Amino acid sequence: MYAITIPEPGGPDALVWDEVVDPVPGEGEVLVEVAASAVNRADLLQRQGFYDPPPGASPYPGLECSGRIAELGTGVSGWSVGDEVCALLSGGGYAEKVAVPAGQLLPAPQGVDLTRAAALPEVTCTVWSNVFMIAHLRPGETLLVHGGSSGIGTMAIQLAKAVGARVAVTAGTKEKLDQCAELGADILINYREQDFVEEIRGATNGAGADVILDNMGAKYLDRNVRALAVNGRLAIIGMQGGIKGELNIGALLGKRAAISATSLRARPLDEKTAIVAAVREHVWPLIAAGHVRPVVDRELPMNDAAAAHRVLEASGHIGKVLLVVS
Amino acid sequence: MYAITIPEPGGPDALVWDEVVDPVPGEGEVLVEVAASAVNRADLLQRQGFYDPPPGASPYPGLECSGRIAELGTGVSGWSVGDEVCALLSGGGYAEKVAVPAGQLLPAPQGVDLTRAAALPEVTCTVWSNVFMIAHLRPGETLLVHGGSSGIGTMAIQLAKAVGARVAVTAGTKEKLDQCAELGADILINYREQDFVEEIRGATNGAGADVILDNMGAKYLDRNVRALAVNGRLAIIGMQGGIKGELNIGALLGKRAAISATSLRARPLDEKTAIVAAVREHVWPLIAAGHVRPVVDRELPMNDAAAAHRVLEASGHIGKVLLVVS
Repeated sequence: MYAITIPEPGGPDALVWDEVVDPVPGEGEVLVEVAASAVNRADLLQRQGFYDPPPGASPYPGLECSGRIAELGTGVSGWSVGDEVCALLSGGGYAEKVAVPAGQLLPAPQGVDLTRAAALPEVTCTVWSNVFMIAHLRPGETLLVHGGSSGIGTMAIQLAKAVGARVAVTAGTKEKLDQCAELGADILINYREQDFVEEIRGATNGAGADVILDNMGAKYLDRNVRALAVNGRLAIIGMQGGIKGELNIGALLGKRAAISATSLRARPLDEKTAIVAAVREHVWPLIAAGHVRPVVDRELPMNDAAAAHRVLEASGHIGKVLLVVS
Repeated sequence: MYAITIPEPGGPDALVWDEVVDPVPGEGEVLVEVAASAVNRADLLQRQGFYDPPPGASPYPGLECSGRIAELGTGVSGWSVGDEVCALLSGGGYAEKVAVPAGQLLPAPQGVDLTRAAALPEVTCTVWSNVFMIAHLRPGETLLVHGGSSGIGTMAIQLAKAVGARVAVTAGTKEKLDQCAELGADILINYREQDFVEEIRGATNGAGADVILDNMGAKYLDRNVRALAVNGRLAIIGMQGGIKGELNIGALLGKRAAISATSLRARPLDEKTAIVAAVREHVWPLIAAGHVRPVVDRELPMNDAAAAHRVLEASGHIGKVLLVVS
């Protein structure tokens, strides 16, 4: 098969579409013939040599895909060759075939074409595990989503609205904020022009956000704590603004608040399986009913993954950038 | 009645036993004739003028007491005049009488004399709410308790052992560590001579602590994060080592760990009521069965509260210091 390889870490052109050995599904795994994959920020780090795949994972980038099951490994039940699926991967999505543990498979949801289903696994699993399983967002509460127009952001807005929460977002352009509003966001904050702490307080009678989904890390840490409500929960899923920041424990304690920080990729199989099962139970029906949809910025041919990485690096996109096998 | 008043904030002698107006139980409250109260670190801050009672609370110090119900306010059911009780207070325990919301009452537990029951409410509610309700310590996990010989520490050791967890403690003297061992602590760390990060890793095959109960705040923040296991939970309940500290978000994220910070006193009545109910359900049977007991350093007459504060400030005590109404 062909896959995107990284002979030498570097810029987007480090991504080389090359012929490689086919993966073989191990026990409890299936082989998926890939229809599409999607680009995640972690892929950019991996391309630059900053994020090695976890032990046992494919060396090729790609944390999610859609496609058809081509082969079942031993000990797999509940799936058949030919099934249309999408999957959470530890790597290897930028390829014509990938081997996946059965616990990380989801049926391609009703009403979403197979290519676009590749936009779903990472964002649904990340948002559901952080905002709902860890931070326990409840109906009537306020969620603040940083980067509201990202793949994660566009899914967080829709899922939070679907459970009856109020949603605030930050983004850097009017176009991005308009798109967030269209998805249901109630409070729109242009982080280039406005102070999100003041804005969220102003929009909540001074209370602040009950849950914050953050991709900035250190740069926003102090402001996020200030923006939290009493009993608030800050869920950090990215460190685009740095790794180490000053934490005001007094402010956190005064609010009886909590901070969690997670990544999906490094989780062991049993945790991923539990998250995928929860997504299938809680999120898939919302997609089938049309309440929640994948937001796709554009589709590009997989052999030009470099172009897709440039789109993410320019940060002008809204939603997910897909890589389609031609 | 008489109560400990604070005419001017200051040192221990700022505590003055003086005649004051009797409290009157409001709706949903009972009047308790106090047998004993106990000293908490927050009382020392209040005495120094650094910790004002929350709105509506008694102006006198004292966050817990034991005694007998002397009068029922309107709308109280399930309690009778003469009942022996202990109670979580928002203040006013250093007095002959105190009015308490019924939701903050607990029956004086079987097998504990009424005076010593005053040692229970703060430590049981703080440990149960943080270690179990928030951090969800599970059987087989490892709990690290800083200040293992404190009132909180001695209760945390016993409750964690009772649910089948492994317990590590830090303390500053051999005598204190011996007392922790007697209560069941498995891993003893003298923080003056040993690095608790290395010690906890060494005792857990490098894994670290699943839950840490911390009273130091900023001073231990970075080391606590380093001492956490994957999926670890750091529960901060005090800031004896400062308010602001550098948080390594990368380390937290790599472990998929979480930090919570809480105080009990500022919680609204409904949250206190829920915690007290959980303590009654889960902790009281352990006390009645003799598996868990209050650890009392000494009993002093309430009118000499200054002496009790000096004991806490000297930090040589093990367990709780009680103030007994004579």
